[in-house]
Amino acid sequence: MVLEKIKKPNDIKKLQPEEFGLLAEEIRSFLIEKISETGGHLASNLGVVELTMALHLAFDLPEDKLIWDVGHQAYTHKLLTGRKEDFGMLRQHGGISGFPKRRESDCDAFDTGHSSTSISAGLGLVCARDLMQQKHSVVSVIGDGSMTGGMAYEAMNNAATLKTNFIIVLNDNNMSISENVGGISRYLTGLRTNTGYNDFKEGLSSALSRIPVLGDALVYRLKQTKSSIKQLLIPGMFFEEMGITYLGPVDGHNIQQMMQVFQEAKKVRHAVLVHVLTKKGKGYRPAEMNPSKFHGVSPFHVSTGKPKEQKRQPDYTDVFSDQICRLAAEDERIVAVTAAMPGGTGLSRFAQKYPKRFFDVGIAEGHAVTFAAGMAAAGLRPVFAVYSSFLQRGFDQILHDVCIQNLPVLFAVDRAGLVGCDGETHQGIFDLSYLTQIPNLTVMAPKNGWELGEFMKLALELEGPAAVRYPRGPACMELEEYRAPVEYGRAEVLEEGGDIAFLAVGSMVETAMEVHRRMLEQGKGSFVVNLRFAKPFDKDTVRRLAMNSRLLVTMEENVHIGGLGEQIAAWLSQEGLKVKVLQIALPDAYVEHGNVMILREENGIDAGSIMRRITEVKGEME
Amino acid sequence: MVLEKIKKPNDIKKLQPEEFGLLAEEIRSFLIEKISETGGHLASNLGVVELTMALHLAFDLPEDKLIWDVGHQAYTHKLLTGRKEDFGMLRQHGGISGFPKRRESDCDAFDTGHSSTSISAGLGLVCARDLMQQKHSVVSVIGDGSMTGGMAYEAMNNAATLKTNFIIVLNDNNMSISENVGGISRYLTGLRTNTGYNDFKEGLSSALSRIPVLGDALVYRLKQTKSSIKQLLIPGMFFEEMGITYLGPVDGHNIQQMMQVFQEAKKVRHAVLVHVLTKKGKGYRPAEMNPSKFHGVSPFHVSTGKPKEQKRQPDYTDVFSDQICRLAAEDERIVAVTAAMPGGTGLSRFAQKYPKRFFDVGIAEGHAVTFAAGMAAAGLRPVFAVYSSFLQRGFDQILHDVCIQNLPVLFAVDRAGLVGCDGETHQGIFDLSYLTQIPNLTVMAPKNGWELGEFMKLALELEGPAAVRYPRGPACMELEEYRAPVEYGRAEVLEEGGDIAFLAVGSMVETAMEVHRRMLEQGKGSFVVNLRFAKPFDKDTVRRLAMNSRLLVTMEENVHIGGLGEQIAAWLSQEGLKVKVLQIALPDAYVEHGNVMILREENGIDAGSIMRRITEVKGEME
Repeated sequence: MVLEKIKKPNDIKKLQPEEFGLLAEEIRSFLIEKISETGGHLASNLGVVELTMALHLAFDLPEDKLIWDVGHQAYTHKLLTGRKEDFGMLRQHGGISGFPKRRESDCDAFDTGHSSTSISAGLGLVCARDLMQQKHSVVSVIGDGSMTGGMAYEAMNNAATLKTNFIIVLNDNNMSISENVGGISRYLTGLRTNTGYNDFKEGLSSALSRIPVLGDALVYRLKQTKSSIKQLLIPGMFFEEMGITYLGPVDGHNIQQMMQVFQEAKKVRHAVLVHVLTKKGKGYRPAEMNPSKFHGVSPFHVSTGKPKEQKRQPDYTDVFSDQICRLAAEDERIVAVTAAMPGGTGLSRFAQKYPKRFFDVGIAEGHAVTFAAGMAAAGLRPVFAVYSSFLQRGFDQILHDVCIQNLPVLFAVDRAGLVGCDGETHQGIFDLSYLTQIPNLTVMAPKNGWELGEFMKLALELEGPAAVRYPRGPACMELEEYRAPVEYGRAEVLEEGGDIAFLAVGSMVETAMEVHRRMLEQGKGSFVVNLRFAKPFDKDTVRRLAMNSRLLVTMEENVHIGGLGEQIAAWLSQEGLKVKVLQIALPDAYVEHGNVMILREENGIDAGSIMRRITEVKGEME
Repeated sequence: MVLEKIKKPNDIKKLQPEEFGLLAEEIRSFLIEKISETGGHLASNLGVVELTMALHLAFDLPEDKLIWDVGHQAYTHKLLTGRKEDFGMLRQHGGISGFPKRRESDCDAFDTGHSSTSISAGLGLVCARDLMQQKHSVVSVIGDGSMTGGMAYEAMNNAATLKTNFIIVLNDNNMSISENVGGISRYLTGLRTNTGYNDFKEGLSSALSRIPVLGDALVYRLKQTKSSIKQLLIPGMFFEEMGITYLGPVDGHNIQQMMQVFQEAKKVRHAVLVHVLTKKGKGYRPAEMNPSKFHGVSPFHVSTGKPKEQKRQPDYTDVFSDQICRLAAEDERIVAVTAAMPGGTGLSRFAQKYPKRFFDVGIAEGHAVTFAAGMAAAGLRPVFAVYSSFLQRGFDQILHDVCIQNLPVLFAVDRAGLVGCDGETHQGIFDLSYLTQIPNLTVMAPKNGWELGEFMKLALELEGPAAVRYPRGPACMELEEYRAPVEYGRAEVLEEGGDIAFLAVGSMVETAMEVHRRMLEQGKGSFVVNLRFAKPFDKDTVRRLAMNSRLLVTMEENVHIGGLGEQIAAWLSQEGLKVKVLQIALPDAYVEHGNVMILREENGIDAGSIMRRITEVKGEME
């Protein structure tokens, strides 16, 4: 086993070049085996095995700084930096993260998770290096998908002014460079990587003077596309126009070729983009055939690629998916927007059924929100389906472009609350705070699948903006017997009795019912209220309960600061209602990766913890 | 007077072409006169007089949709749509806004204020138009500055896929198109605007085949710049590469030429960018000479361009400006970042003194935050100076890139609280809510200029992230006698006595003192506490006061939802401290433009309103 020889950073440099192929093979087998057990990101990691090896061969870690955009493709990097033994606990509670973490290794230069941050962070490291008169290389590795994010452009625009080296590796896995222009591109690659930079200028002008011989190809391509001279002259023109040298494309599975280009890239005295072509899922046939399905996977059978456990019940995303198709059949104004996640958000079926009413805008949450605002201003009813933690990118746009004008955009906020294995960058635990503070926005959270459907219906009939937040995973199909008609701004009372009242929002309604049942077993009744509306919350119901209870317990899967518990407690205080309020919410901290059940317990929002807190508080009140 | 003839939209079309020049002159005189009285955005408006006229001549409003990016340049548009008589109250309370507002006119297609939103919104209108089978034109007018914002790129990337007309007007006022390439550019303009689109393809390939005759120019330019072939071949290549047809550049002061290009642009069956060259401040010499100074102005003398009132005392921005220079002299790790506002944020002097440590990243708040995070990760101490409402654009980056890693970035949050005449898009009234909910972030607000300096010092010694928020306008130089040393997380008690305690943050400390004085006049003492830290707030002091007071009054210039008042009241409730808490904060609503004093009164956060609220509450408590 070659992989056995890799115990720490730079061990790969001790290998013979003949061993590279074997190492790549062993890494792939290792990743497939481990991820089939723990789940994780597969296709993206299989695609960058050789790229990662070439980077580790061409650069010296941890002195040189390597930043992985998004970061879900850093598994090989983790293997090559001494974390092989930790893969049994990948993404598990207490184990290593599925993303780069500075606290895990000094070879992880910057923590990532959300898209398109790596060039900004890398540029920061570059400017710091220069000011501190250091000499190391800084390399940001970014996918072609992440390049659609505005931050990447803002950062490139800024990086273009550099007079010092900064290497951006574009990990392009969708083969967008067509054969038509491959000739020029190979020519330029050869030109730029095989000659020194001093020869560059003359080489270039000579290259340009040869362009006319390609006249026929130009005309041919013009006939094919009306989008004028796009990508015609030189691939990479986009980057060159910004002032960033373009090298490539290079074969992302050819280690020698990549090493050679990286050596050339180091010599450039400004920002340089190395365009690397990789194949997502490479080396595992099921993933090559369906890279999107194997992007992030649960444990699966290696031989077939089939998941080990079949989904037993629909998740909230499925419920959303069904309902938006149903509502769209009745209301032609309904359109749907996704920021590059039709599958994850459940919009694929809508896209098939209503292709003209479906818009995938790329990884561009800010634009998505304002684009939806534009459609709403014209009379449509846009639904932007997005994960809670990614919607943070659209905060200003919700506040500034949607809500000032009170435009009827519906935000379908998936993955709200704890998401589990993806960890702190992906937990959707801030939205109740950041959304409820925005004027004009209605914020709802369903107790179960049925209610999600009802909320969507109501939201799409409103004349203003609304958000519905719902968790990752199986839709709660419990509490089916509670079907009080949904009324704007009104809570639903599920159970009555006793001197304690639970005011729960969304996923916590089920937990509140569990606490209620446990208390019943002890012979104590309690009120259980499903708030339904986080904004506006139902002041009448809260007031009535406050006047008739000794203790109110608010429950939300969101940080406590700015959350609903604080808002309710503060309102009661202002109203002079002196009932004691126990606020069950997540602490003011990031929550690491791990099983959601464990995370709920650790953070005190499971039924057991809540029971203990209630007992404590009741003790204090005696 | 030609301007007299313009009473409503499209009246301009009744004019003879010979009258256009006179109208432009009259509009300029009108704007200079009015803005010299009310203050407002001058240079940008003077620059687009002819462009706006040409747009109104070439398109039919309100059927065609016109979106002004940022929107501060829409004054001529307002004049041409029947709002001339309202200019006496421009930006005044109850008068017309300085930005486009749908509620003011159906010719304002979309509200703007922050940068780089117009292409997203316009694309939304385009997609809605097509779905609804309408035929009107949609035109987004965006400045070259706004083009540095990532949203504009996200939107262009998306717009490039259109198979239908969408006109983007690039209002370029910094003359970035150099003479070197003017030849090709004029050639292409002629080619594209003077021949029909059907001839376009052949015309283009013929144009390309002529490029070699420019060989000398190419080589000459290559010798000048190392940034390779940037802007060499064809201006607009950047847009063409994305799939957006480029028309231009055209003279933005030549109405006939622009009208002709707009007619051509209407025929393009996908997104088309019209590149218009304008001169900021045109027609008013002081503004032409110093467009940046005349971007936004207070009332001034028309003859000299000098402001009518001299600044009497330094504002918070000046205090920040002095202190960052002072601290940077002592600590080489301090670097400063601005998103295209070195003047407004007070960083110009720092930029002069420490050019290598100063970074203007363009209108790119998201990138700015993560870029700062990168520098902090490498050991520097970056300060990102930014307006409160613009920092909303960096919300996710603060949460995801700075605070998860607990990196020592200082956010100098200027224009926090009510800003006045710029209105709802610019009020900095959300930051206490959106910042305090973020884990690891320290949030401070100074009571006066001295304290701002002290907070900056403390923040730059922290090992984690911090934000200091301070208002627009004169630095409070009152309360100089209160100089308790700043201690992390500790409040400052200014006055003691009585059974009522004021817990005030930032600008509200001065108001609390005023209320205190008024109560003293009535023979009643009170505690006045300057909280200093919004996060973490001083629980010891709050607890002590809660135990010894009948009423706590929290005061903040921020919306109440998620604000400090709610946090304090909720904490007290959870702690079982049953003191009544009156929360003085802004209501859950956007605040329109107007004099800050009036806005404070209207929203109940001035001393008089607070006195009345206290009397009410005391009455209820009897």
